Amino acid sequence: MKVAYQGVPGAYSEQASRALFGPGCRTMPCETFDAVFEAVENRTADRGVIPIENSLGGSIHLNYDLLVRHALSVTREAYVRIEHALLAPSGLKLADVREVRSHPQALAQCSDFLAAHRAIKPVVWFDTAGAAASLAENPEPDKESAPGSARVAAIASEAAGKLYGLKVLKKGLQNRAVNYTRFLCIARAPERPAKGAVLKTSLTFVPARNQAGVLHKITGLFAERGIDLSKIESRPDPEKPFDYRFYLDISGGAQDAPVRAALQGLKKMTRDLRVLGSYARAELPKAGRRK
Amino acid sequence: MKVAYQGVPGAYSEQASRALFGPGCRTMPCETFDAVFEAVENRTADRGVIPIENSLGGSIHLNYDLLVRHALSVTREAYVRIEHALLAPSGLKLADVREVRSHPQALAQCSDFLAAHRAIKPVVWFDTAGAAASLAENPEPDKESAPGSARVAAIASEAAGKLYGLKVLKKGLQNRAVNYTRFLCIARAPERPAKGAVLKTSLTFVPARNQAGVLHKITGLFAERGIDLSKIESRPDPEKPFDYRFYLDISGGAQDAPVRAALQGLKKMTRDLRVLGSYARAELPKAGRRK
Repeated sequence: MKVAYQGVPGAYSEQASRALFGPGCRTMPCETFDAVFEAVENRTADRGVIPIENSLGGSIHLNYDLLVRHALSVTREAYVRIEHALLAPSGLKLADVREVRSHPQALAQCSDFLAAHRAIKPVVWFDTAGAAASLAENPEPDKESAPGSARVAAIASEAAGKLYGLKVLKKGLQNRAVNYTRFLCIARAPERPAKGAVLKTSLTFVPARNQAGVLHKITGLFAERGIDLSKIESRPDPEKPFDYRFYLDISGGAQDAPVRAALQGLKKMTRDLRVLGSYARAELPKAGRRK
Repeated sequence: MKVAYQGVPGAYSEQASRALFGPGCRTMPCETFDAVFEAVENRTADRGVIPIENSLGGSIHLNYDLLVRHALSVTREAYVRIEHALLAPSGLKLADVREVRSHPQALAQCSDFLAAHRAIKPVVWFDTAGAAASLAENPEPDKESAPGSARVAAIASEAAGKLYGLKVLKKGLQNRAVNYTRFLCIARAPERPAKGAVLKTSLTFVPARNQAGVLHKITGLFAERGIDLSKIESRPDPEKPFDYRFYLDISGGAQDAPVRAALQGLKKMTRDLRVLGSYARAELPKAGRRK
């Protein structure tokens, strides 16, 4: 089982891959989310793992767009707690750090720390673990051109720090203690879920235009069959501002008779309906305390 | 009329303030969104203007949280097209730029440009216009310690560049041509909308727990009265993962009889219901072409 993810070893997406397929699974780093989808489509990888929403940042529209564009199935989900650490080469002290590298989202999530440490310049890297890796490879990047000017740290997971031999200068760097990301697994075909698993199904569609109360009719298709909605989101299409695309997560599998009946009704009220996949429901991680 | 916004002069939020209150309105820059809410509450400002959602990034949960926490009214909305430009002190050429400063979200929105220009180090500033302002103030920040090493540019609006006397090196820097942000105006009390304005109302609530089909009952309250929903979003509370908070925008004003009746029904099915305000509906900006 070879699992493609965006980033480099130590990425949160790699953590999610191991949470989904066991610590021994073979993982395949990709530069972009597009490359993850392509790797699965081209059979270079058996599965892909992508982040789909974050508890602070909300839905990751880019990956919803890619799910709509590619004919792949969502087969699993997992939640990963995001705990950012300040990582540095050994010998560097917090007071001496002058630059910190990380993903723009991670830097934004640590803005309180950065505001309290104005001497540290936050530099964007398009990958948290990649920032740690680059630092481990070249711990004093500007030493020759500007001696002593670049005492660099990275923000990534503790696991990434361990992998690249960096020291943890500070844990729990993010503004809010509770911060998790939901990941989805994508595959070329549906997977048979474990026996007794509680299933959920993800779908997306654009409701038929200008039809009064269409959303009420849609929720009715599910309510009258005892199907729960665990997520609903409408998003104006940036290219066609009067079209709203909906994202729904419902209880049950797409092959269950009540869900099938509801989807048949849904097809008549919407266009571009895509059943993204059915999979075992994961539990949200327990709220933790800030360390 | 004094309008508080987060950022410094030239910020997109300031553009939104002028779109809402005319080019001559007095604006008051604040360091944080919290400070904008406090300025309105403390009567230091008459109004506040905050971003609430972006066409690519989605809802800005932080500002929804602040709306829930503060007893202020939403009284207007406006859409602003986000067009990032690469700004630099005169004399600096694109090929010589080695560092670019901007908000993490803006840097993320320009990731294609940054990927194609690896020699440029993207540095986080917590404000697009602030990055332009700091650059105008000190165009060669590290000249003494490292001569020639810091040829710095900023990513912000063209308007910010004009304000701070910076040159536009490149326009339309963002990955996707269509990129807009929706802003809300907050006030201590509701405003009387212009006669003939088409109203909408924003609300938020947590549905009563474990009640099957509760969302269908809620959409029914609106559908049976001919009230349209232009936005619906559910978001798990990061602190209490089994509670979902909903954000809804509906057609009509909170004082209209049908809306009042629907809200009375809604109160019985939900907790923590907050009517954030009623205001004239703004039109989405027309989709433009990439330059």
